[in-house]
Amino acid sequence: MLTVLSVAEAKEKILAAVQARTEQEPVLLAAATGRTLAQPVAAEEDLPSFARSTMDGFAVIAQDTYGASEAMPALFDVRGEILMGREPETALAPGEALRISTGGMLPTESDAVVMVEHTEMLGGNIMALNRAVAPGENIIVRGEDLRAGEGILFPGHVLRPQDIGVLAALGQTLVTVAKRPRVAIISTGDELVMPDAVPKAGQIRDINSFMLSSWVESCGAVADRHGIIPDSKDALRAALQRTAAYDCIILSGGSSAGARDYTAACIDELGKPGVLFHGVSMRPGKPLIFGVVNGKPYFGLSGNPTSAMVGFLLFVRPLLRQMQGAITLLPLLRAKVERNLSSASGREDYIRAWLYAEGDELWARPILGQANLISTVVRGNALLRIPQNREGVEAGESVEVLLI
Amino acid sequence: MLTVLSVAEAKEKILAAVQARTEQEPVLLAAATGRTLAQPVAAEEDLPSFARSTMDGFAVIAQDTYGASEAMPALFDVRGEILMGREPETALAPGEALRISTGGMLPTESDAVVMVEHTEMLGGNIMALNRAVAPGENIIVRGEDLRAGEGILFPGHVLRPQDIGVLAALGQTLVTVAKRPRVAIISTGDELVMPDAVPKAGQIRDINSFMLSSWVESCGAVADRHGIIPDSKDALRAALQRTAAYDCIILSGGSSAGARDYTAACIDELGKPGVLFHGVSMRPGKPLIFGVVNGKPYFGLSGNPTSAMVGFLLFVRPLLRQMQGAITLLPLLRAKVERNLSSASGREDYIRAWLYAEGDELWARPILGQANLISTVVRGNALLRIPQNREGVEAGESVEVLLI
Repeated sequence: MLTVLSVAEAKEKILAAVQARTEQEPVLLAAATGRTLAQPVAAEEDLPSFARSTMDGFAVIAQDTYGASEAMPALFDVRGEILMGREPETALAPGEALRISTGGMLPTESDAVVMVEHTEMLGGNIMALNRAVAPGENIIVRGEDLRAGEGILFPGHVLRPQDIGVLAALGQTLVTVAKRPRVAIISTGDELVMPDAVPKAGQIRDINSFMLSSWVESCGAVADRHGIIPDSKDALRAALQRTAAYDCIILSGGSSAGARDYTAACIDELGKPGVLFHGVSMRPGKPLIFGVVNGKPYFGLSGNPTSAMVGFLLFVRPLLRQMQGAITLLPLLRAKVERNLSSASGREDYIRAWLYAEGDELWARPILGQANLISTVVRGNALLRIPQNREGVEAGESVEVLLI
Repeated sequence: MLTVLSVAEAKEKILAAVQARTEQEPVLLAAATGRTLAQPVAAEEDLPSFARSTMDGFAVIAQDTYGASEAMPALFDVRGEILMGREPETALAPGEALRISTGGMLPTESDAVVMVEHTEMLGGNIMALNRAVAPGENIIVRGEDLRAGEGILFPGHVLRPQDIGVLAALGQTLVTVAKRPRVAIISTGDELVMPDAVPKAGQIRDINSFMLSSWVESCGAVADRHGIIPDSKDALRAALQRTAAYDCIILSGGSSAGARDYTAACIDELGKPGVLFHGVSMRPGKPLIFGVVNGKPYFGLSGNPTSAMVGFLLFVRPLLRQMQGAITLLPLLRAKVERNLSSASGREDYIRAWLYAEGDELWARPILGQANLISTVVRGNALLRIPQNREGVEAGESVEVLLI
């Protein structure tokens, strides 16, 4: 049972062991930001559905403007104005123009707009144009933004404000998104008290329930804190039974050596296959337990908050995103490390750091202090990855960076 | 009134015109993620408040271990076990050891922990140790994470999950944060219909109310959509009167040339100083109106969604963050641009792009299409900045990148 895997092996095993959930739900557009799209979105009709002006000016037939110059303006008969939000009331014949505002609908005959700056009104509705325009100039043609049937958003896309905008444009006010996974969070340890309690000698306040809830919510999932469970197999068993309705269970702690064994044993008791591995060759976060029972994932993270956080970021977050079918949109960042860092070969290290820009480059300043101090992840804004096959990295070397 | 400013001048004018708000409110720790801290946070007592073991093993006096080796183990009398969450019941005399688990409280006399892996139990509570430890080894001393009085979080800090963790550790379950600015969003234009309506010829669905609400919420502010106002001065005046209780007002649209003038005029009518500028030398987003009345900011963004979004990101977002006193934690990114891009000198350009990692570098692929197509910002994940004094950038050149 005590197989120690590499980070890559562990992640692969976790993602392979749990199927992407297919449950979907409709949400109102105004509540859809940050949710993961579950259905493709295509334009049902051309967007825009009519040719529109992108300037204030006059709708014309481009051919009528050819040769127009300051010295020899082209003259147009202005037949009226196109009102915003209305169909043009007047058809356009050669030599004619209609006033139009930005966003106005062009008459069928018109294929260009001349900017008001290039015109002058003479008497009796006669407009003089001093510059020629090409067909298509200063307009958006029908379907230029999206053609009917054209896909614009795809399942797995995590909705951003501009995506909300395009959904509004397409009239899709009810959006089908992946259901949020419901995550139960349990802290275990005889030494833990709630954050609002005053710890006695030997006791400390529970950090992980609150920190992990916040991380879980940042992944689009719902977190429920199930409180602090003492280091007792019966208590842990009872706590796990109360999580039957959840999609993912995160335990952390298990402070005594015996208690850590209870965690694995209690997961195994729940059903098959049970614990898949116990331990990952990484620092911090080595004593990580992962199990699956009836397709549902169980994580046993370290009681140490920094270790629990690294375990969460490397393993739980990708799984919660996979459970929603979410696809990552932004590239992985890299930065140059300020100074030499040593590591042990065979182990992946995550070093807390301060990331900053210097000229064209991103640099990372490692933050000193033991991995089990929470202050180091609070003072940092990034984790640097030292790969498993390396005994360290040299000053100026480029490393992968995880924003925290 | 129609002064056209540079982007830098406009931003400076906006940020100087509106004071940071000083209103604060308490929120429960579980609801504090993403909020901006309004008070400094310091440790009220040492964290941890007692020396703790970082390993499973035995608490010892380091001096007793000197010289211990495989060939010549040091022998200890194991006097009992330190229970998690309890004060040690037994004081430690030279030559004595106490079993301890990770996180356990060391007795006052102990200054190191020996790992269980380096020990062997002989008969009669005698433990043989085959490796020496230095003072401080495998322990965290009292106050090593934070000393009493030491500051860890500062006003303006936007709270992340690990910050929630350290607040839990310090027992600060009620957090004083900046009040969220309340933002009223108004779309104007005779051509606009609600997203759930079927537009008639010449009409389009309102994109900006929904997209800007989503952007506003992403800045930690509260967005209220005040609907669509027709291009009428009276309607706009009435709408502005309904926003008296808000901290910031964002108008967008004003589709006809006349309607854009109403916006400025109606802001001026409200009080002093009124409109500060109208127009910024940028693309997209040039026709931007900014005004202040009685210290409250009013933005008139373009009706075109892409222009409105760029105006929001460059000017409204920094102001909403300033109103919360928020400090930026992550550095500005830069990327190399895939191909030559032309621009006009004297104007700042924001080009929609797809950002990706290639080896150690970030690259950006510009997305073609007019600035007024919403599909281009949906297909992109970044905006590239071409500075005002440049006529373009060359393939391979490094440019500033704004994630979208």
